[in-house]
Amino acid sequence: MDLDVFFAGTAGSDPTARRGMPAVLVRRGGDRLLFDCGEGTQRQLVRSTGLPELDDVFVTHFHADHWLGLPGMLKTFDLRDREKPLTVHGPPGLRDLLGAMRAVYGRLSYELRIEEVRPGDEVRRDGYTVAAVGVEHRIPALGFVLWEDERPGEFDPETAERLGVRPGPDFGRLQHGESVDGVAPEQVLGPARAGRKLLVSGDTAPSEAVRVAAHGADLLVHEATFLEEEAERAAETGHTTAAQAASIARDAGVRMLALVHTSTRYAGRQIREEARTIFERTIVPRDFDSIEIPFPERGEPRLVRSEEEPVAS
Amino acid sequence: MDLDVFFAGTAGSDPTARRGMPAVLVRRGGDRLLFDCGEGTQRQLVRSTGLPELDDVFVTHFHADHWLGLPGMLKTFDLRDREKPLTVHGPPGLRDLLGAMRAVYGRLSYELRIEEVRPGDEVRRDGYTVAAVGVEHRIPALGFVLWEDERPGEFDPETAERLGVRPGPDFGRLQHGESVDGVAPEQVLGPARAGRKLLVSGDTAPSEAVRVAAHGADLLVHEATFLEEEAERAAETGHTTAAQAASIARDAGVRMLALVHTSTRYAGRQIREEARTIFERTIVPRDFDSIEIPFPERGEPRLVRSEEEPVAS
Repeated sequence: MDLDVFFAGTAGSDPTARRGMPAVLVRRGGDRLLFDCGEGTQRQLVRSTGLPELDDVFVTHFHADHWLGLPGMLKTFDLRDREKPLTVHGPPGLRDLLGAMRAVYGRLSYELRIEEVRPGDEVRRDGYTVAAVGVEHRIPALGFVLWEDERPGEFDPETAERLGVRPGPDFGRLQHGESVDGVAPEQVLGPARAGRKLLVSGDTAPSEAVRVAAHGADLLVHEATFLEEEAERAAETGHTTAAQAASIARDAGVRMLALVHTSTRYAGRQIREEARTIFERTIVPRDFDSIEIPFPERGEPRLVRSEEEPVAS
Repeated sequence: MDLDVFFAGTAGSDPTARRGMPAVLVRRGGDRLLFDCGEGTQRQLVRSTGLPELDDVFVTHFHADHWLGLPGMLKTFDLRDREKPLTVHGPPGLRDLLGAMRAVYGRLSYELRIEEVRPGDEVRRDGYTVAAVGVEHRIPALGFVLWEDERPGEFDPETAERLGVRPGPDFGRLQHGESVDGVAPEQVLGPARAGRKLLVSGDTAPSEAVRVAAHGADLLVHEATFLEEEAERAAETGHTTAAQAASIARDAGVRMLALVHTSTRYAGRQIREEARTIFERTIVPRDFDSIEIPFPERGEPRLVRSEEEPVAS
């Protein structure tokens, strides 16, 4: 089951030539989940992956740079005669916000489901769960953690054969939890293995809830609006410095840290260098980069650079 | 006085990899006027010309693809501590629309002036006028025509010298309409010359008002959502075909026709070829192309291609 995170927009509150407004696309198997949807996100996707048939959109909070691309995207799905329902999840107030935006998107060809979620609320999907984490910003704000269900333990083919099971389809049945000719799966499978986990912080000051929820995650996508030299301003505005985000990644023991929502005043290199003094496996993705997250036994999360610069200038 | 038209977004109702949502920037001397502001326009400008200190924004109508970039842009100006007032002009209802969007842009560092305009209304600026033209769409919609004030006639230096004026600063005074040593400007200047004129149609079915207002224009920027093979659909939806736009350009005797708002189903080449069978001086600009409009005695309007492809793919 493939799992990756595609960075559709990595800017902070205003766009730059190289960075679009916040949007992170998580692709797991055939599922497509979008976390935040800043202005222009639909075009960023059209320019890169193609606009996917999203299943769920998660809005972290209601500062406009994090959701203003949603009404236009809802409208575009309608123009394309989408039929599959779309669920938008976000903090309380989401229903009023999208109601006020109905002037933009009008009547839709598909069902729009609006789910107001509070910290701790969980959304179950086939094979994984997305849960809301209460973070610390100037207005109510959520991070979202996605964790996969446990996977069956490692299969032991030698034991299976010794118990009289023939290699072939029966091996598959055992691995999927079925008994075969009196042999129970637990006789030939090791202990269940944890699924993968990733967390998207949204905008937040350093948050204990994020540190806890990110424990052992394969990937932490965290905001790093400022450098440590502006720690005071970060605190005033409810944001995090690169060094603070790196400390959280280190304390949570994540496998990789991706920093986004960087202020236009810094180069990505500065953000990365500050964070790496604390947490080496830090990257600052560019727009259209992605991070592949293999199962742990198959290797570390891996940055896949966009083939080309996402901008002409 | 330089005058050009920069195409920040040339798509129709939904964006493509190559074409952003509708937005046309007119640059005259130091003035910057934006006509329509689809989602993502601020980023298109950041990626190309840089986000200019706009003086006026003209909204043709309230279909979302023509204004949804405005709230985010207003907010970005605020983040940049803009102080100069900004005037937004559009059909009646503009005040309510921008009022409903205040949730997005909040309190601004500058004065936002909202001007509801009706067909025939004129906005006077230093050296030119912008007037609203009532066009034919599914909802009330405006085109906008910009015309420059008349220029003084051609200066005749030989006559001036014969009348005793010495070459130098006095020549300049005469050309700017001042009398010098009893010599009146009209003695040494030819008949007043027309200023330049351009028209932006917005979304419209073929419109008699556009044909009249565009008479003799240097540039007509017209929508061409469809090809003639879909003339019926164009009529149903209040749009124009490439051939129809070309007929208007021919009948109005414009110097150049630029077609925008093309449906994603057509290549620009198809639109151009259909129009050129009727009006040869037709172009279909790409995003970030511009058209320079010199004074007529200095040459024809000229397409300036963007140096690079505006998209990576």
